[in-house]
Parts: sequence; structure tokens; C-alpha cells
Amino acid sequence: MPDARNIRRRGSDFLEGDLILTAGTRLDARSIVAAAASDIAEAKVYKRPHVAVLATGDELAEPGRARDIPGAIPESVSFGAAAIARQWGGKCIECRRLPDEPALLESAAGEALSAADLVIVTGGASVGEKDYSRSMFDRFGLELIFSKVAIKPGKPVWLGRSLGRLVIGLPGNPTSALVTARLFLAPLLLQLGGGEADKAWNWQKAPLFNRLTAGGSRETFLRAGWKEGLVEPLADQDSSAQRALASADLLVRRAVEAAALDAGELVDVLDF
Amino acid sequence: MPDARNIRRRGSDFLEGDLILTAGTRLDARSIVAAAASDIAEAKVYKRPHVAVLATGDELAEPGRARDIPGAIPESVSFGAAAIARQWGGKCIECRRLPDEPALLESAAGEALSAADLVIVTGGASVGEKDYSRSMFDRFGLELIFSKVAIKPGKPVWLGRSLGRLVIGLPGNPTSALVTARLFLAPLLLQLGGGEADKAWNWQKAPLFNRLTAGGSRETFLRAGWKEGLVEPLADQDSSAQRALASADLLVRRAVEAAALDAGELVDVLDF
Repeated sequence: MPDARNIRRRGSDFLEGDLILTAGTRLDARSIVAAAASDIAEAKVYKRPHVAVLATGDELAEPGRARDIPGAIPESVSFGAAAIARQWGGKCIECRRLPDEPALLESAAGEALSAADLVIVTGGASVGEKDYSRSMFDRFGLELIFSKVAIKPGKPVWLGRSLGRLVIGLPGNPTSALVTARLFLAPLLLQLGGGEADKAWNWQKAPLFNRLTAGGSRETFLRAGWKEGLVEPLADQDSSAQRALASADLLVRRAVEAAALDAGELVDVLDF
Repeated sequence: MPDARNIRRRGSDFLEGDLILTAGTRLDARSIVAAAASDIAEAKVYKRPHVAVLATGDELAEPGRARDIPGAIPESVSFGAAAIARQWGGKCIECRRLPDEPALLESAAGEALSAADLVIVTGGASVGEKDYSRSMFDRFGLELIFSKVAIKPGKPVWLGRSLGRLVIGLPGNPTSALVTARLFLAPLLLQLGGGEADKAWNWQKAPLFNRLTAGGSRETFLRAGWKEGLVEPLADQDSSAQRALASADLLVRRAVEAAALDAGELVDVLDF
């Protein structure tokens, strides 16, 4: 009889008929091992949602060209929005930079709606006379699902439906755009890709490295990093800051009028 | 004079000559925004390290075929190892399943070493007479860098160098293989891809959902999940378990003879 210490009983991990992965599970390194271990040759998967990114604004120049154009700033948000879209299962089929010309914007909107499951528009978040980011979809029957959210940063974010496609409008400020992409775009893409939107809001408790002042009158998402395994909100919380973005590995959620917290106390954090 | 509330001062985010991203930073959604914002058209990047995955063992069958072969088990580890390699910047150029035939293994080892920067071998982790996972590299002058590590699971993991390429041997047990891939393969790939190995060991402090018993005589990496934002080690800590892998979003590090901890106390966790 063989040495039983090195033999595992049949069915000790799972049995025929057991549920190994629920529908909508993303096939990451660990779940793909579980799928293969169950002797499955093929799994039915969802199509990656197709995404179009339209960056609007006369002031925007291609990175590397802004220095030569008076008044121009390098367009940066679309690259980040596209990267977040890919990270959450989307496939970027189009990424365009567009000036504030109504006819051009309208035709770009039409093309994006005909090709993509989800259209991301950046810029034009204020409500000045030159805000075309929403009106460019008017001809295609844009219906707003929500517009403006009581959060900081990211108040101008909006979501709509046009020709059966979803359209999300991200604020023009780069930090606001990426925060709202993480909070609203990520769950949308999970759901469009057959998963559960909730899985993108995987808030965790983590201890603070230092003291945190009381919250303000709007729900706030502070950008933070890890320091010695603890959460340290960044010094620069300007919603236009781009340099600080690179080290902002976390978002910290602060409720309206949240009490000040001491170092070591727990906050709610989300990977950014 | 325009309304100054809506105007940002030139250089308020960063100035010419400021360091925006350090060399070796991965261009994720946030850092790519910072790069573009600095009006840079092109960034010099490192080549993705090329990875070959060789799964060895007579008992291994292609997923979907094991049910028809007496004594066979579905080969699952290579899919997970390849996914972890991709996740950490590697490019899988080859993924092969090989029987325990010395001549075949040796020729596969030679081909992998000639094509890849890093070779991952799975299986054959025990030291029985049929363990070829290391000897298949003998002819190519394998020099061991380390062999066996005092951790649980994953003790049999080894690392060597052969013809100037790195070779990592992952344990045959699927959970052990994925844990050691996360702990040893991920930092290797970061470094080979021009980053810093340390960035893969981004341990964080997080509070426990429930009580944790004292640690044993070996440093242990418990598989855990998030529950209500807190850390909950999985009930199934068997190193051969594959079903439990899918819900193991975290590793919890327990030092040798670590004291028992109460719910709410902090443990060191790593995203898995």
C-alpha cells in the first residue's frame, strides 16, 4: 500500500457538479487555474466592451506640440481614461482629440456611437457658452441618466444614453477625470463586460499614517499613497494636479463632515 | 481683468526641469497622464521581458482531456503562471506541456533558453527519481541562485541561471506555485522590465475580520479575501487547493511563531 501522506483523496478539492466560478468572474491568474483544474477546455466569455474616447477643447494639443502653440496645453486625460478603460476590460477602438467646432464634434459623436458600446467624452465640463461635450450628442437623442454628482473632485461627471450606447462625460480637470473614471467608468465597464459593477467598488479598511482633518461639506475622495504599509493622503489635493497623480495609488473616501481621525485609525480606501 | 478664480498660475503643478516620473515607473493610467501633461511626445520604455513557461509531468493533460486518461490531472498551473507573468510586464512567447522524457525536456529547455529572458518551469518540485524540472537544464550549465525557501506554502521554489537566462522553478502544487509566482516571479519581472523589484512587495497593513491563530514554525502566507473591507483568511489553506484560489484576493504574511491576533488587529497583506 502506498504512503498515504503523499496521496490526496479524490474530490478533496472539489467534486463533479460543484460550482467553481460564478458567471461574470474575470479570468485572472487565480481563477484561470481553478477553471483549468476543473478539466474545462473552453469557457464562454463576454466580448470586451468597445470604447471610444473623445477629448474636446480648442486648448488641447498633442503631447509634444503644446510648447509651440500659444495658449495650448498638452492633452493628457484621454490617455489615462483609455488606460483605465482597458484595465477594467474595455477595448479602445478609437481615441480622438477634437477642437470646439460643432459640426466636427457632431460627426465625431455619430461615428463613435456607431462603433462603440461606450463613449467617453473629456473636457467641456463647465457650463460656459463653449461647452459642446454634451450638445454634440443632442442630434443623437442624448438622454441624461445623471448629471453632476455631489462629490469632490469630480462634480461635473455625467452619464447619458444615446442611440442605445452609453456616454460618460468626464470633467476637464485631469485628477477629477481620473477619479470619476475610477468611480463611475470602471463599474460600467465591468457590467458591460458581463461582470458585476459592484466588484469595482472594492473598498477596504486601512490605517492612516498620519492625522486627517475633518471632512467638508461634500463627499470627498482624497488621493493617497502607501507609506510603511499605511495610508498617507498626498499633500497636493488640487483637482488639476497631474504630477501628483503618479504617486496616488489610493483613493480615501471622506463622508460629508467626517470627523478628524488620528494616525492609526481606519479609513475606507480604494485602489486607484 | 479676467476672473482669477478660474485661472491657474503658470507652473502651479510643475515647472520646466522638474522630475515628473522616475526611470522604471510603469506607465499606468495615472503616470501616463503625468507624462502627457509634461508635453512629452515619446517616452523611452524597456522591452517587456520574454517569458517561456514549461509545465512538466507525465500526469498532466490538457484541460478538457484529463477525464479520458486514467491517472491524469488537468494541467492548470502554467495558465496561472503565464497570467501572473503578463500582469507584471512579461510577454509569454511560449507555453508548453511536457512529459517526463529527459531528451524531450532537454531540447525544450534549450529552445526556451534561446528565446526567452526568463524560463518558468512548473512541476517536478519534489526530489523523487522522476524530478527532471531541474536536471533538464544541467546540460546548459544551470547554476542555482537559491533552492528551497523556508516559507509555507512554496518551500520547493528555486531560482537559477542558465546560458545567461534566469530560470525559476515553481512548486507542483497549484496554490504553492501561484504564491511563489507572486512572491518571487513578480519582482523578477519588474526588475527585468526596468523597474524595481521592491515595488512588487507592496505590503500593506489591514485589519482582520476575525481572530487569527498563532503562527507555526515556518513563515506562512495565508490566502485571504476581503469581507466588509476587512481581511478574512480562507477556510481552505491546503496548498493543493485550486477552487479556493479564485477568491484569494490577498496574501497574509505570518512570521514564525507569530502571536494570535484578535479581530480588528492589523496584519500585513499583499494583493494576490
